[in-house]
Amino acid sequence: MSSIDKNLTSFVEVANDSDFSIHNLPYGIFSETTGGKRRAGIAIGDQVLDLSVLEDAGLLKLSGGPYFDKPTLNSFIESGRDNWTTARNTVQKLLSADNDTLRDNDGLRRKALFNQSDVTLHLPLHVPGYTDFYSSKEHATNVGTMFRDPNNALLPNWTELPVGYNGRASTVIVSGHDVVRPSGQLKPNPDERPIFSACKRLDFELETAFVVGKPNHIGQPISIDDAWEHIFGMVLLNDWSARDIQKWEYVPLGPFNAKTFASSISPWIVTLDALEPFKTSVPVQDPQPLAYLCEDKTDNTYDINLSVELMTEKSDQATVVCETNFKYMYWSMAQQLTHHTITGCAVQVGDLMGSGTISGPTPESYGSMLEIAWNATKPVTLKDGETRTFIEDGDTVIMKGYSEKDGIRVGFGEVRGKVLPALNFNFTN
Amino acid sequence: MSSIDKNLTSFVEVANDSDFSIHNLPYGIFSETTGGKRRAGIAIGDQVLDLSVLEDAGLLKLSGGPYFDKPTLNSFIESGRDNWTTARNTVQKLLSADNDTLRDNDGLRRKALFNQSDVTLHLPLHVPGYTDFYSSKEHATNVGTMFRDPNNALLPNWTELPVGYNGRASTVIVSGHDVVRPSGQLKPNPDERPIFSACKRLDFELETAFVVGKPNHIGQPISIDDAWEHIFGMVLLNDWSARDIQKWEYVPLGPFNAKTFASSISPWIVTLDALEPFKTSVPVQDPQPLAYLCEDKTDNTYDINLSVELMTEKSDQATVVCETNFKYMYWSMAQQLTHHTITGCAVQVGDLMGSGTISGPTPESYGSMLEIAWNATKPVTLKDGETRTFIEDGDTVIMKGYSEKDGIRVGFGEVRGKVLPALNFNFTN
Repeated sequence: MSSIDKNLTSFVEVANDSDFSIHNLPYGIFSETTGGKRRAGIAIGDQVLDLSVLEDAGLLKLSGGPYFDKPTLNSFIESGRDNWTTARNTVQKLLSADNDTLRDNDGLRRKALFNQSDVTLHLPLHVPGYTDFYSSKEHATNVGTMFRDPNNALLPNWTELPVGYNGRASTVIVSGHDVVRPSGQLKPNPDERPIFSACKRLDFELETAFVVGKPNHIGQPISIDDAWEHIFGMVLLNDWSARDIQKWEYVPLGPFNAKTFASSISPWIVTLDALEPFKTSVPVQDPQPLAYLCEDKTDNTYDINLSVELMTEKSDQATVVCETNFKYMYWSMAQQLTHHTITGCAVQVGDLMGSGTISGPTPESYGSMLEIAWNATKPVTLKDGETRTFIEDGDTVIMKGYSEKDGIRVGFGEVRGKVLPALNFNFTN
Repeated sequence: MSSIDKNLTSFVEVANDSDFSIHNLPYGIFSETTGGKRRAGIAIGDQVLDLSVLEDAGLLKLSGGPYFDKPTLNSFIESGRDNWTTARNTVQKLLSADNDTLRDNDGLRRKALFNQSDVTLHLPLHVPGYTDFYSSKEHATNVGTMFRDPNNALLPNWTELPVGYNGRASTVIVSGHDVVRPSGQLKPNPDERPIFSACKRLDFELETAFVVGKPNHIGQPISIDDAWEHIFGMVLLNDWSARDIQKWEYVPLGPFNAKTFASSISPWIVTLDALEPFKTSVPVQDPQPLAYLCEDKTDNTYDINLSVELMTEKSDQATVVCETNFKYMYWSMAQQLTHHTITGCAVQVGDLMGSGTISGPTPESYGSMLEIAWNATKPVTLKDGETRTFIEDGDTVIMKGYSEKDGIRVGFGEVRGKVLPALNFNFTN
């Protein structure tokens, strides 16, 4: 893991509040024009550094490469941890203020550095599998309180295993893509048959997801001691949810149509190496998990500040509706991954593993509108005077995340999505 | 769709009870040695016809080809229905008894035809997504009766929509691969904490799955009128299930570890064109489904005989433990696909959509050990004298399927899997 040199600065200007300091160096896929050639870059300040140019210039030599003149990061990630380390160290050196290789080579700089505002960011991964966990005790308790029984809000299995389910990888999209309001079956009246309708309770879920960096073979679980070695990095995730469709469809086999229409991720993958300085512990786990889930380390999660902003079409001023932290999550990412594979399931490079909605202990820290407006009983008033219980057409949801300590900031940027009106269908029931 | 010429025969010998008549022509991927070059073939009698050889010889010309000198069928399937039709018609003609092109060319026949028993069959598809439905009313009723309430066995949503959930595509395996008994969390004693253990209630689920042949875009549902055009063909599916793990983990988000360790499919994809003569209707749907799920055709399913055989290590004699039929399924494949995409979910070429366990009305036609041995209360006696309530180590499960009418037989071959003992772990709780 990388050691931190607080005095390290880049010759590329990086604002104090930038998520993309020289300590971060997150990976993404970009093109100069919307339909242009896709290749890998690293964010630094408000710039993107084209890694394929560095490879081409012989400045970034990785075992088995080249890797970066490609439309996804999968082959680089699959090439293994030694390459992850070499790439990070090489790029950090090349971007540092006291290294003249790139700094003083005007021609190379012009070829390799682009304004982020000038380029298009794409889905950074081919995502073979997408799994969503449910690992915030506060969120699970809130949902259980609203929909089941306040006195037994948590189901008995919740504290014994990281509950999760398979999501739909084909609809993982990158920040900036609009989301069409889904239509489907709702049952607004318990005494009548369901109806076909546009979703009336469209929600976000504030999550992170980790990216699997090393696969396992079918039938060979990943042990808790090895799990961290299988994780490459993290992104922000908005797991869009149609609450009314979910409520009607989800028994007994879990959420399906209510979750499969879109899951938006941030374009930059922040590596665990970059997050290393922000390690902290998950909450006390009581009861102590079964042995296969017991970690012998206590610095098994990260202190990451997270927020959700809501913006209507009436104004360009966003309102913060949630401020929370990743460290509230009860189950660690290593525990999630180990549990995922314990019966022999194979994970693949590029798989995304969603955290589940990240709610904290206070109403200000709840990670979904369902909880923030408490099942539509406590509408939220936005800065522009609008009120919301769920997400309306034209609304934009913006999630942000960053870690900060001793003047070092490592952030995720944002995942943003605007909701478009539902399609028109030719039938009414 | 193909018309049927009952008098059509092949110069390749095809036994009367062969699944692979000239009317079938299912697609698979094979290699001459286990690790050898993979390419596409069609089964005829006990032979495999190498389609890459036909392409190479200029006898099989498809738009945008060649397609068959590849390790999966995805690009051929993605190339569209016109090519599906051309390939079927061309191969049927080349294999027919009265066509001399292949029949009388000894050199080409030696290059293009292999004994099935001499080759290795592989997973025929890259499977981007795997979804499992739950569309047998008898199965859902049996499970609801055992685990919930016999008087309200079917949940209210069951007759309104084809209940389904996302499965795990990474562990779809082909017939012949062994399955390691999974270990995980069980809760044998309701008053005590769960334990870590090898699964004690390992089960099969007799299913079919359809293969998506034409994708849709995110946000653009496939209408019920278009749905059949998106389906390429069908396979047999054994959706292995760990009942004790499932019982403990599945609330509230559905099955996860209990189902993700293996899903076995048959190696040959039978096309809908081949199944055309065996069309029939799904059972009466009451209530009539909402408009988006209403089909205006009644020949919306297929008459496919299905069976499950169980064989222990004590003998090589298998015992039939289930005989059922695909036509019992309440929801059609078109309804499943339309429902899957109604909120905007994107499906991809090669996606597998499992039917759900196919149980018929009588105990002899139940499609899982859970139902056959009625939650372990009615052990099954096998031909070798062994009794079973669930699947034991060393047992082999064999599923078969075929359609037959007017002397024409179109079959799936089999999906076979043997259960190996659980791994040894270093911990006991």
